[in-house]
Amino acid sequence: MRTFDSGKSEFGQSGPIQVARWEQYQIGTGMPFGAMWYTVPPGASSLRDCHPEPELSIVVAGTGFVEVATGITEVGVGSAFLLDSEEAHVVHNRTADAPLTLFSAY
Amino acid sequence: MRTFDSGKSEFGQSGPIQVARWEQYQIGTGMPFGAMWYTVPPGASSLRDCHPEPELSIVVAGTGFVEVATGITEVGVGSAFLLDSEEAHVVHNRTADAPLTLFSAY
Repeated sequence: MRTFDSGKSEFGQSGPIQVARWEQYQIGTGMPFGAMWYTVPPGASSLRDCHPEPELSIVVAGTGFVEVATGITEVGVGSAFLLDSEEAHVVHNRTADAPLTLFSAY
Repeated sequence: MRTFDSGKSEFGQSGPIQVARWEQYQIGTGMPFGAMWYTVPPGASSLRDCHPEPELSIVVAGTGFVEVATGITEVGVGSAFLLDSEEAHVVHNRTADAPLTLFSAY
């Protein structure tokens, strides 16, 4: 077993957000999907993203507002959202003081 | 986009724990891996489990103590653990009052 703590992972800047891709853990074939943590600072939003892979995200800290073509949905800590293949999305952190951290598998 | 709230999902009893498998959401091929939420009541432990699929779990509420052959590891809210294929595991909730809820992908 291996454990992973987002607070002890190496994050890189990606536009307005910080991203910790799990390639840094060198898991290899032990996990059949890609994964990352990402953090949206207070008051910030991710850049618009759109990719072929469906993406499942879980809010692990803070509250997310996820914008897709059909509107904006609030997603609280512990809840998840699944983006379809090629579904454009922006993740907003509308709080003034708390970072928003998510785990994504894709 | 679809959202999933563990608090609004249908859990079934599985020994001492409650499990909400994502088959209930009928996502079909939109997600390339299996997923579930599960809750370990205060003071309880999961049954020993062991299966061919590697399993990635994230603690979304409470604190987990994950037991494998090499020992017991504390995993806090927001952190993750990855079990190898065929790695036997038991998840303990050592608190007296707070449920332990996890999300697993496999």
